[in-house]
Amino acid sequence: MKTEKKIRIEDYRRADYPIEPLFLERWSPRAMSGEDLTEQDFFMLFEAARWAPSTYNEQEWLFLYARRDTPSWPVFFDLLVEGNRAWCKNAALLVVIVAHKVFNKTGQPNPVHLFDCGNAFENLALQGSSMGLVVHGMQGFDYEKARVVLKVPDDYAVAAMFAAGRPGDPSDLPENLRSREVPTGRKPVRDIICEGAFRKK
Amino acid sequence: MKTEKKIRIEDYRRADYPIEPLFLERWSPRAMSGEDLTEQDFFMLFEAARWAPSTYNEQEWLFLYARRDTPSWPVFFDLLVEGNRAWCKNAALLVVIVAHKVFNKTGQPNPVHLFDCGNAFENLALQGSSMGLVVHGMQGFDYEKARVVLKVPDDYAVAAMFAAGRPGDPSDLPENLRSREVPTGRKPVRDIICEGAFRKK
Repeated sequence: MKTEKKIRIEDYRRADYPIEPLFLERWSPRAMSGEDLTEQDFFMLFEAARWAPSTYNEQEWLFLYARRDTPSWPVFFDLLVEGNRAWCKNAALLVVIVAHKVFNKTGQPNPVHLFDCGNAFENLALQGSSMGLVVHGMQGFDYEKARVVLKVPDDYAVAAMFAAGRPGDPSDLPENLRSREVPTGRKPVRDIICEGAFRKK
Repeated sequence: MKTEKKIRIEDYRRADYPIEPLFLERWSPRAMSGEDLTEQDFFMLFEAARWAPSTYNEQEWLFLYARRDTPSWPVFFDLLVEGNRAWCKNAALLVVIVAHKVFNKTGQPNPVHLFDCGNAFENLALQGSSMGLVVHGMQGFDYEKARVVLKVPDDYAVAAMFAAGRPGDPSDLPENLRSREVPTGRKPVRDIICEGAFRKK
């Protein structure tokens, strides 16, 4: 068995203000082991997503999923761009998040259907991180093909994909991804806020 | 001083799977006290947002903000629909989240610019909740007016607004909102997931 180099978050990230540790500890690894998730793990991820906020509590997210070694797996896997296939082959779960574009009650456009899906995904990503799992969001897939092969109706938007699984050995990643298998930094907080009207940062 | 009825989450919500408590504990109150946030509180909120995931680590979010008792406050407040003004008048902070629609490097469309803003907002909302603050997302505002008065350029989308502040007394809310000042429930987890292709739930 290979020895995994354990990532120490404090070697890569420092919070400038004292926030809850889980925000800093969550990052987006790619190395996965190819093992399946337990039923409990699987449902814990979506349970976290479930409690996210949405406008009028619309819960306009729907998670289309494929677990590895099922007939749906190749359908979802084939949506990915080549670069994502290289590491998603060891995922346990591939998910396409779709969003109801209109309000259930009125049929009027819901301006935050994609935004709200982000709320739900982030809960899921944080929960996965706290469980020691890999959760990695993606836009590197064929949105139009996803709509066709997954029969997504016109009143739903294809929002994003993500892969999830058990952590694996980074040395099994393709060379170009191996050096990127570390937590990324961020802009200073003052670069993401702006008092009053828009000013380019 | 009025006695606040303390909300006990367990009276309103039950997780079906054992998730991190902060997801269940976060909800969207409206009652705020009108007090300001400290500098530390203010920056802690955005610090949490800062560490959210985004495609290619693009961090395409920008938080335009107004603090109460500043010249920007009425500009932001006037964007809100009447129903939101009724309770946002006691907020400490109003924020319009804008999203860069194209990738910095290539100028190509970024399909997850709104989704990623949701990731960042959810971090901020969870952090605020853990600090005992109110954070409440909104789409009930004039998106087009926001673009004009806040000088949002064409390559940025107006994603959403939120209000934040110190918790207040629910009995000060307008009557129609008072009874809604409790944590909302959610659909069962099986209603937000779907194996394989889309099926209406």
